[in-house]
Order: sequence, then structure tokens, then C-alpha cells
Amino acid sequence: MKRLYFILSMLIILNAVTAQRPPLINSPEVHPDHSITFRYFSRSAQKVTLRGEFLPVGLSMEKDTSGVWSVKVPPVNPDIYPYSFLVDSVELADPNNTYIFANERFKRSIVDIPGNTPLMHSLQNVPHGKISYRYYHSATLGTTRRMLVYTPPDFDASGKLKYPVLYLIHGGSDTEETWTRVGNAHLIADNLIAKGLAKPMIIVMPYGNVRPKPMSDFTKEVMNDIIPFIDANYPVLTDSRNRAIAGFSVGGGQTLNIGLTNTDQFSYICSYAPFTATEEFQRNFSSWNPAADKINSQLKLFTISVGTEDFLYESVKKNLALFEERGIRVKPYIVSGGHTWMNCKQYLTTTLKELFK
Amino acid sequence: MKRLYFILSMLIILNAVTAQRPPLINSPEVHPDHSITFRYFSRSAQKVTLRGEFLPVGLSMEKDTSGVWSVKVPPVNPDIYPYSFLVDSVELADPNNTYIFANERFKRSIVDIPGNTPLMHSLQNVPHGKISYRYYHSATLGTTRRMLVYTPPDFDASGKLKYPVLYLIHGGSDTEETWTRVGNAHLIADNLIAKGLAKPMIIVMPYGNVRPKPMSDFTKEVMNDIIPFIDANYPVLTDSRNRAIAGFSVGGGQTLNIGLTNTDQFSYICSYAPFTATEEFQRNFSSWNPAADKINSQLKLFTISVGTEDFLYESVKKNLALFEERGIRVKPYIVSGGHTWMNCKQYLTTTLKELFK
Repeated sequence: MKRLYFILSMLIILNAVTAQRPPLINSPEVHPDHSITFRYFSRSAQKVTLRGEFLPVGLSMEKDTSGVWSVKVPPVNPDIYPYSFLVDSVELADPNNTYIFANERFKRSIVDIPGNTPLMHSLQNVPHGKISYRYYHSATLGTTRRMLVYTPPDFDASGKLKYPVLYLIHGGSDTEETWTRVGNAHLIADNLIAKGLAKPMIIVMPYGNVRPKPMSDFTKEVMNDIIPFIDANYPVLTDSRNRAIAGFSVGGGQTLNIGLTNTDQFSYICSYAPFTATEEFQRNFSSWNPAADKINSQLKLFTISVGTEDFLYESVKKNLALFEERGIRVKPYIVSGGHTWMNCKQYLTTTLKELFK
Repeated sequence: MKRLYFILSMLIILNAVTAQRPPLINSPEVHPDHSITFRYFSRSAQKVTLRGEFLPVGLSMEKDTSGVWSVKVPPVNPDIYPYSFLVDSVELADPNNTYIFANERFKRSIVDIPGNTPLMHSLQNVPHGKISYRYYHSATLGTTRRMLVYTPPDFDASGKLKYPVLYLIHGGSDTEETWTRVGNAHLIADNLIAKGLAKPMIIVMPYGNVRPKPMSDFTKEVMNDIIPFIDANYPVLTDSRNRAIAGFSVGGGQTLNIGLTNTDQFSYICSYAPFTATEEFQRNFSSWNPAADKINSQLKLFTISVGTEDFLYESVKKNLALFEERGIRVKPYIVSGGHTWMNCKQYLTTTLKELFK
């Protein structure tokens, strides 16, 4: 009797829990052949479309009798891709997928299609570093802010060993989490370090969308707050030969502005598909008359990466021409692909192999 | 001429960037009097409704001529609340708000209404600990998994100082990030430690939704993988007097199952609004005949918390009666409020003050 009573209460409680919720759905489901099934539950939607950076155009989804819309996408090239659902006229992230693109202006989900052999950005059976979420005081902005700090596997906090540091900046509406959540920067570093292809290093991922002056104030913030915080709280090598800066899109423009005006502080400057249509870039470089020999001797590596389908491709070619014209040694890294985080992971992989060598 | 050309290219590039995107919208905007304006952009929606855990029913939003829907909510009691938009029939997170409820089955945003004096869960001007994202190997599950580890301000990694540990488990469809992203567990700890109200401790937040057997396999995982990983990688006190377990909802049920069957390992068991309609709970406790005196002497604190509006309130009262009937000393912590993360923050605050004293 007691048992029956218990089972009845169980059912009542379970019902109360589940009644509030849509059915449990598996989405995205990545199949062994790299095809993917996406699913979305709605009884009332008229039309549901899948949008994804692996698709040239949206794909219509079909509804079954239980209200689950789905579509199976043919095999996709292994990578991590953003996607979303367009439900009637509303774009949204996949409610059943925990993995979200960290961004301030949209909510998209990400799907990871593993390779037949593990990719450089995949979770592999190697020693893992860790990502720490840190608060720090910004005197520049008069507030407390957050940054992410990757420390490598077997990190020695004692100070006996000192590490080089890469400052890594996200794109325009991204956040301090985008390089790890979408770019898998920590796993790329883990894998390259395990293979001996990159040096153990600390990677600092600050939040670059400083308002109201995202360019000039962020430069101050990096130089006056972020670098001193890292130097004070981590066992790091503080000379320019052990300090690198890299960034994507708006962060690629910030990288050029910060790096090239502080070549005594950074020997490595790696700009990914930089967005340079900014007042700060113009102020710094339109009538720039650099001591090219000195800068070339200070820099161990200056690269600009871009994909040939990137909407900034022509702009980046002009950036390259500008720096070459002024006698600055710059290494172009031009690949296929667009202004995407698939490309970002490639850029970072290439960069990490070349730093601090 | 060169300058004009530059400005023209700037405009073309800016246009290319912005054309793809909806207008920049400030949402949520929390006003000084604790009223809040929510905004959502859609030219095509027929109806947009705000849903929030600070509202008894959804609030209709109004569209202006530019396609921005908005509603201003009268002053709200300072706290952190989940909310979402219902656009026609589609529920979604606020596209303009970076702060997302970490959950596997829905996407909601969170809004933080600060108090006139800082709340215990707010970012205050005190020393901050850090949250680390760690991978570990689970022998139980044969895979690599992720946990979050909070280390307190001025954490000494050298091993000279050893810390007590709280294992803190999320709710049923939450993730290992929910306690920090929604519960601000790290800030509650920072603030209580700064005031001398809690001992410096390590807080371990594992991922509890172990599949296919979320109850029994998670118990094994905690005992055989998670605790050994922490003991091996952090300077911790490993006796039961320095080990606590707490959790919410399904995690509250897991807390009872793990804690009460391992009273030689945990002297502190704090269960928040436990969901106990599970086979594991029934197996462990329906015909439980405990050595109550021994257990009471092993436990320094055993509490069960619940809100009087919680849908599990009646169930929790039965749990309390069950334990009392078996002679186990349990301290009820009954407050107002429902099965919410607003309540969770209260439960955790109370717990942290009582641990390791």
C-alpha cells in the first residue's frame, strides 16, 4: 500500500515536472557518415527553416504527426558550424542544444562534426590545460571586468617556470567567451602542445567591446590594465619576445592598432581578417611614416590572414599593400573560406605553431 | 582625394557589416528605480509577449514604427530572473542579451536587478576567486567530461594551505554552468568570504545529467572519478569533516542519495528542493533502516531547503518526515518562493555560512 502510494506520488510529481516542458528531442544528431539531423518541436509553426554556415541556402524542415520538425542534412565537411532555426519569421537558437555561439547581437547554436581522425580543434585524449574566468579592475574604465585565461597542461603556478603570453581578441559583437566556445582555442592549444607543435603558453582572452570608444579605450585597457593584471597574477615572461597579440575582424583591427603602435611590447602580431574602417586605424596609419627598419627588427612575426571569400578580402589586400608600401615586413596568410569562425580556427592553429620560436 | 576614397570604402564596408544585422537594441534596460524595459526587433511578428519569473502572467509588448517591440515593467524586487520572449508562438531568449540561462531544454535570458545596497550574489568590490573549466577522465563513463571549479580569493596552489570542498550539483535539465551563470555561486562565495561569513573553500560543480542512468551512475561518478580528480589536483582536506555536498531539484535528490549513503565521506549534506521520485531514492530509502545514532554523529549538518510555493513542497515535507521517522537529525529550511533559481541563491547563501565551522 505504501509502495502504491509512493508510485502514485511519483507519477503525479513526474507529470507536474514534464507537463511544463516540450518533449525531449535529440538535436542536432550527428551521424557517423557526417550527415546531421536537426529537430525542433512546434505544433503551431507554419514553416521551419534550418540556417547553417554549412548550407548555401536555408533548408525547409518537415513536421511529423507529433509536432517535431526535422531535416537530415547530407554529409558535411567536419568542422564546428553556427546554425539557427527560422520559425515562421523568428530566428532562434536550437532549444535542445546547450552549445551556443557567444555573441551580443544574435543567438545561434553550434554543431561539431568530428573528423574521421581527430581534428586539431577537437577534444582529444591529451593532457588538458584549463580556462579560468577572472575578474579584474579596469582603471581605464573605472569598473570590474572579466577575462578568460588559458593556462597550459601541467601549468606550474609556483613561478619556477615562466610562460610566454598570447593576447587573443574576439570579433565585433562577440564576447570574451567566443574564442573558447566557438573557436575551441583551448583545445587547439592543448593538441598543438601535446604534439610539440606549439610552446606551452598562456592565452588571455579579454572582452574587447569597450564602450563608448571601442578602439582607443580598448588599446589603453590592454596596455594599462590587462597586461599589468596578467604580469602581476601569472608567472609570465614580460619581454616583447614573449608577448603576442592576435584577433579577428574588429579584434583584428584592434590587433593592428595595439600591436603596431607598441612594437616594443609585442614581437608577434597576427591579425585575422581585420576590420580597419575605423577612425583609430585611419589616425594611426593613413599618414604613418614608420621607422620600418626598427619595427622590422622588433617584430619576429607579423601576419595578416584572410579567406578569399571573406567580405573583407579586398580591404585586407589594401591593408597588406599599405604596410608593404611603408616597408613593413608582413606575411600574408591567404586561404579559402569566408569571414567565419571555421576560418578563425585555421588562423589560430597556424599562428600558435609560429609563436615564441 | 585619398581621404575621400578612404571614407567611401569605410561606408561601403560598414554597410556590408550592418546590412546583415538588425538594429542595435538595448535590452534589457534596467532603470535606477528597478523598472525594466525589454525590447525586441521584428517587422513581421504579429504579437510579442514578455515572460519572466518576476511576472505572474505574460506581458504584451508594443511595436513602434521602426519595428522595435518594447514593454516597461514596473519596479521589480532586486534579484536575478530568467525571462524569454514569446514571438507569435515561438519562445526564445533575448537576442540582444549575452546572459543566458545554461540549460539543455530551453533557451532563456537572465536579467540582474541590482539592489540599492549590493546583494550577496552581486559583483562587489571585494577580492575575487576564479572559476576554472576543467576536463577530467571518467572511468565510470569511459569518456572525458567537464566540471567547473571555484577557487577562493588568494588561493594558494602550493599545497601549504589545504581547503575544504563543497560539491554542488545543478537541477535536472541544467548544466555544469548553471550554478555560476544563473546562481552566481562564485560571487556569493566571494562576498561571504570577504565578510568573514564563510570559510575559504573550493566549490566543485560537476555535470550531473549522466546518461543513461542519471542517478546510480552519477553517484559512482562522484565517488570514483570526481572526488579523486579533485583530491589529486587541488590542495584539499580529504576527511569527511571538510567535505560537503549540496544540490538543487534533481541535484537535490542526487545529494540525498550520494550524501546519505556515504556519511563517512560527507559531514555536510544540504539538499535544495529535492526531486526524489526516483527509483534510486526509493531503493535507498523506502525500507531504510539506518544506524541513526552513527549517522547523526557523522553528520555535522543535514538540511533540506524548500519554498512554500515550490511544486515539490508537499514532497519535501514527506522527505523530512521520512528522515525524522528514521531518527535522522535533519534541519528544515523553509522559506517563501517557488522552485526557482532566485530561491537557490538563498539556499546556497545560507549553506555556505554553515559549512566547515
